[in-house]
Amino acid sequence: ASWYRREIAVGDTAGSRYLLHFEGANITTDVFVNGRRAGGHVGGYVGFDVDLTPYLRPDAANRLDVRVDNSYDPHVVPSQKADFAIDGGITRDVQLDVLPATHLRALRVRTPQVSQASGRAVVTVELDRPGAPADYSLEVVVTAPNGRVAARAVQALPALSGARSVEVALPAVARPALWSPDSPALYTATVRLRQGNRVVDEVADRFGFRWFEFRPGGPFLLNGRRLLLRGTHWHEDYAGYGAAMPDSLRRRDMAMIRGMGANFVRLAHYPHDPAVYRAADSLGLLLWDELPWNRGGVGDAEWRVNTKRLLEEQIRQNFNHPSIVLWSVGNEVDWIPDFPGGEDPQAVDAFVRELNDLAHRLDPGRVTAMRKYPGAAKIVDVFSPSIWAGWYNGVYTDYEKALESTRRNSPTFLHMEYGGDSHVGRHTETTISGTGMARPGEWEESATQTQVKNIAQNGDWSESYIVDLMDWHLTVSEKLDWLTGNAQWAFKDFPTPLRPENPIPYVNQKGLVDRNGVPKDAYYVYRSHWTTTPKFTYIESHTWTERSGPAGKPRTVRVWSNCDAVELLLNGTSQGTKRRDPQDFPAQGLRWSVHFTDGENRLDARCPGQPASASDSLRVRYSTTQAGAADRIELSSRKLPNGNVLVEAWVVDARGRRNLDYNKRVYFAHDGSGHLLVDYGTPTRSQVIEMANGHAAIEFVPEPGGRAVIEARNQDFKGVYLVVQ
Amino acid sequence: ASWYRREIAVGDTAGSRYLLHFEGANITTDVFVNGRRAGGHVGGYVGFDVDLTPYLRPDAANRLDVRVDNSYDPHVVPSQKADFAIDGGITRDVQLDVLPATHLRALRVRTPQVSQASGRAVVTVELDRPGAPADYSLEVVVTAPNGRVAARAVQALPALSGARSVEVALPAVARPALWSPDSPALYTATVRLRQGNRVVDEVADRFGFRWFEFRPGGPFLLNGRRLLLRGTHWHEDYAGYGAAMPDSLRRRDMAMIRGMGANFVRLAHYPHDPAVYRAADSLGLLLWDELPWNRGGVGDAEWRVNTKRLLEEQIRQNFNHPSIVLWSVGNEVDWIPDFPGGEDPQAVDAFVRELNDLAHRLDPGRVTAMRKYPGAAKIVDVFSPSIWAGWYNGVYTDYEKALESTRRNSPTFLHMEYGGDSHVGRHTETTISGTGMARPGEWEESATQTQVKNIAQNGDWSESYIVDLMDWHLTVSEKLDWLTGNAQWAFKDFPTPLRPENPIPYVNQKGLVDRNGVPKDAYYVYRSHWTTTPKFTYIESHTWTERSGPAGKPRTVRVWSNCDAVELLLNGTSQGTKRRDPQDFPAQGLRWSVHFTDGENRLDARCPGQPASASDSLRVRYSTTQAGAADRIELSSRKLPNGNVLVEAWVVDARGRRNLDYNKRVYFAHDGSGHLLVDYGTPTRSQVIEMANGHAAIEFVPEPGGRAVIEARNQDFKGVYLVVQ
Repeated sequence: ASWYRREIAVGDTAGSRYLLHFEGANITTDVFVNGRRAGGHVGGYVGFDVDLTPYLRPDAANRLDVRVDNSYDPHVVPSQKADFAIDGGITRDVQLDVLPATHLRALRVRTPQVSQASGRAVVTVELDRPGAPADYSLEVVVTAPNGRVAARAVQALPALSGARSVEVALPAVARPALWSPDSPALYTATVRLRQGNRVVDEVADRFGFRWFEFRPGGPFLLNGRRLLLRGTHWHEDYAGYGAAMPDSLRRRDMAMIRGMGANFVRLAHYPHDPAVYRAADSLGLLLWDELPWNRGGVGDAEWRVNTKRLLEEQIRQNFNHPSIVLWSVGNEVDWIPDFPGGEDPQAVDAFVRELNDLAHRLDPGRVTAMRKYPGAAKIVDVFSPSIWAGWYNGVYTDYEKALESTRRNSPTFLHMEYGGDSHVGRHTETTISGTGMARPGEWEESATQTQVKNIAQNGDWSESYIVDLMDWHLTVSEKLDWLTGNAQWAFKDFPTPLRPENPIPYVNQKGLVDRNGVPKDAYYVYRSHWTTTPKFTYIESHTWTERSGPAGKPRTVRVWSNCDAVELLLNGTSQGTKRRDPQDFPAQGLRWSVHFTDGENRLDARCPGQPASASDSLRVRYSTTQAGAADRIELSSRKLPNGNVLVEAWVVDARGRRNLDYNKRVYFAHDGSGHLLVDYGTPTRSQVIEMANGHAAIEFVPEPGGRAVIEARNQDFKGVYLVVQ
Repeated sequence: ASWYRREIAVGDTAGSRYLLHFEGANITTDVFVNGRRAGGHVGGYVGFDVDLTPYLRPDAANRLDVRVDNSYDPHVVPSQKADFAIDGGITRDVQLDVLPATHLRALRVRTPQVSQASGRAVVTVELDRPGAPADYSLEVVVTAPNGRVAARAVQALPALSGARSVEVALPAVARPALWSPDSPALYTATVRLRQGNRVVDEVADRFGFRWFEFRPGGPFLLNGRRLLLRGTHWHEDYAGYGAAMPDSLRRRDMAMIRGMGANFVRLAHYPHDPAVYRAADSLGLLLWDELPWNRGGVGDAEWRVNTKRLLEEQIRQNFNHPSIVLWSVGNEVDWIPDFPGGEDPQAVDAFVRELNDLAHRLDPGRVTAMRKYPGAAKIVDVFSPSIWAGWYNGVYTDYEKALESTRRNSPTFLHMEYGGDSHVGRHTETTISGTGMARPGEWEESATQTQVKNIAQNGDWSESYIVDLMDWHLTVSEKLDWLTGNAQWAFKDFPTPLRPENPIPYVNQKGLVDRNGVPKDAYYVYRSHWTTTPKFTYIESHTWTERSGPAGKPRTVRVWSNCDAVELLLNGTSQGTKRRDPQDFPAQGLRWSVHFTDGENRLDARCPGQPASASDSLRVRYSTTQAGAADRIELSSRKLPNGNVLVEAWVVDARGRRNLDYNKRVYFAHDGSGHLLVDYGTPTRSQVIEMANGHAAIEFVPEPGGRAVIEARNQDFKGVYLVVQ
């Protein structure tokens, strides 16, 4: 458990309520005021209040102690078998709300009838009314995106004490600005609690007018028009912060996802920070919001009570966001039970049904969803099977066949999760297709990777392969006019306790960007398929600047771009202009066969008629002599713009030529002043990391005037030192 | 650097010398008295004195600060490229010698003429004589093993000041008790410094009368008779202590080596603690004593001065031990230079010659040696090539051919280092021979394992394979009448920074015993070949109690024993009595083909006519059903005799049957009270360890009344917890 302590000075507490609001704390929270327990909460990823009022000493400093425990507790979702880090402690903002004794607690906006012509909002207000009855009324105002009042209602309140909720129906808004990815129009509902003319309390929230439909057999319609759901996934995580990242970084990641052209995000695998939903609302990203029932099967009575309560809290809290279209009640729920019999299909079906009914009862305006557990296909509104073509099963060229076959068997489906791991800087001249490692049409998959043969186990985890896999999936997805959509797993590398042997240990490397948000090659594949502006070109790859091959043998250069046409130049000589064709795999036809010069080369990619900002250039060192076996590690260093020193390790042969095939783990060590940046889970901030094409690097923070000795060693090599001073 | 601080109270210092004696400190030592530097030493593994006298405050408490630095310094051997841990700090005893101003410093005993009929000792005494000349004399007494005076000499000293040495020749000892492994007879030389009749100072040391000869083409002769050198290697290391182990454990390891039947130890790869030489002298173990020039090539001028000085210090300090027969001037010296050109054969040859000459000059009574560097074969007296049949090159059945071919090319050779790694508890029904992984007769070997194909890289690191390899080597060695001898690498598992990916990370697992001294199967192979008493049997294997195979298929059971005959019983039924034949590979013919019952089985091995203590029995659980793919980890625990809890992880299939093929790494984690025993580098005290036949274990130290949660996870499995309370 983690303990947090703070002193809070309060004045006269009479007539006020002091509510300590947590946006989320993992997993079990206990709050103590002056040593007495004031309240708490079981379950992470959702917000909750603790009323401190009865425990506070007026006009004094009060000691606040918060204990947050994420130790093993099988009674709370997610299961520890989940394949992501369940960070502990206070991971989101906490605020102290000082409110009048009678106050508003929450507002929920339903939009039961929306069309191009009109939209009606119904606002439910929760309020807390201890003490004597009084002459209270509620005023509800709806403001349009342009700031004008669009609707208003006033309603007297019956004289009641205690918490209760009141529903206020507003007059219809004519021709509402509809919320959509291209035009995320947000209305604001403001609720004022009045006593006579005096405003006692006021709350406000944003909402949107939009309607949607998941058609059986596809596609998806938003506001009556087809919208292909172009999705990805995002875990609440950032290098150096984990789940406790600042809101600005949450917004940054969501903006980057939108900037890549996505219009859909499945929030993996739990409700996220409120800032994330606000970002999605205003960026125009549709959301799949998921209960953290993740693996472990059905639990005991305590587990069931907790799980249902958490779903209820999630739906109530996130109710107003127009971005959310789906309430997912779980993922891979029957894999590896935590309780005996927890994987029994009858028990799982029954509990999925309970959750499904609960979600519908709490929110008739949205649909339910679930991924992977086959029994759910007949229960929830929208089901995602598991299709990992070219990674956990089969080869990627099976993808269309897999979609077609799923369509026949589960009519209302939305495909969540495809992709694969890639290690930054690992590239190959001879990219695998996966055929031979896994047979086409083989769809075995397993909770553990010990039971099946697949490319995840046998592939090279190169960027080259993942670029092909992603490109293929997009080529297929974009052409199918019936497809509801899909979501790549996952936008960003993220930590997991399950994968200690990964190239970056404990990091799931399926991201389009690294754990720090730096794009990998695959990110540009998405931008090229999904965006039209701003125009760009990206020569594959800026992390592949050392290549080799026999003299006279041509090599492929691919360019990722959203321009209509691209011209490639090698050492100043045009290699021709190609027109981009979204159905021409790979690289939408933007591929060239070139003859590199032995030594330094320069590549330039230009979009005819586009500004220079749409161009790209790259220096490539090409060797026509094949390096011999790995003989030693060489170390070098250079200053980075951030002031750190990048220490680079290169594996070379006996003659000092770089060995581009060496992919084993390397361990960095340090002695002396300064420190290495480690445990960030990024390509340059990991103490233990697999080499990529015979290269690895680590950032070192020097101390002024200090001297440090840095070593890179591994199973094969030891005793190579770099002195940094 | 490590700092050590101590207060020492001294009385009146006049007329006394305060010498701080270090038996060894790694690598560079500085000694400060009351803040002033009194002296120091560069280089580990040898003893040195620092004279504190001028810096002490009489009749006061004095502050002693010792700084010992083992950070990267290429100017001191061994190279950081060495394949063993170079532990830092004060790793051996330190003592404060309070001596008279004029005192004896050291004595060295030569035995230039030894035969069955007589032995002559010449004692060289170093003494320190500051101040005025005085009427001093030396008395030297040689005491026989039986405590009687065997020889005596008295010699007047010339009046000189300062340090100097005096040689005293003693009368011949008639029919001396000769020192040998079977009869390690030790004489004592006592030197008394007298002023008139008063004994001012006295020193004593033990020595032995023996002579030896390394015959060109073999064999080795001790005291005129052939002695096959049956050897192993030992690093100064113990689990939980590293190099700083107590002397009692050093003696324990040496006694265990002798108890296994060895008569020879190569001290790897540096001079050891004085207790080790004393143990070898009294146990009857012949020694190869080695200068720590280990890899890194020849260095610069500073390196050369240091290296030669360290050889001189080593020879002077270890001079008297009858156990030492060889001064080795280095190992693998030209591999991977630390200085440009350091591997140049001309430079290396020249420096080997300098060291070789220095050793001969300092000690004409012993021979020089070196391993692996080919150029040394023509320089040193006894050369060891590298032959790692069945591990780093070729297959083990090549061993005899390799010895014969070496004999032709390097006449005076002694084979150091053979063997291979084995992971405790890893056994197989289908032991590999290595053929197919490496071709017979292939003798490529490399400083790095990246360049060659060999069994070290491709084998299973099972005990089963290593037992075969060792058995084969012994079968060959014991039959060759010309063979000088050889030494298995190494008696005990030991740490190295070079092998992070080993089954026990950072542990070289070539030991016959684990890092805690617990025997592996291979230990019994040696005992069976090399000892005659006490009689024993060992059923292979006490760490292989789960086996499986198709119903009706016989399985091999092997027994290791030094009895003339052994009877094996399965579930009470005799499987026959076999006579032991040292040339019948494998297991000297003590192998049976048995039909296990499905379920529990009991094996008993007995030596006819021998006491029950020579028997062994073993319970084996046998399954005729093959387990399916690994499905999960199961955890269980049991109390150990040492009071700890052994937490065991088992990989099972979907039906709970043990998967005996699962060999991947597992990571133990702990939350709550108590602690796991980690970083000991032993099979039950490593937080990260490869499974052996689907099993791994870790020791947990519980806290009374506490509760702990222990997890075992890895790349495939997570979320399995064991609550210990």
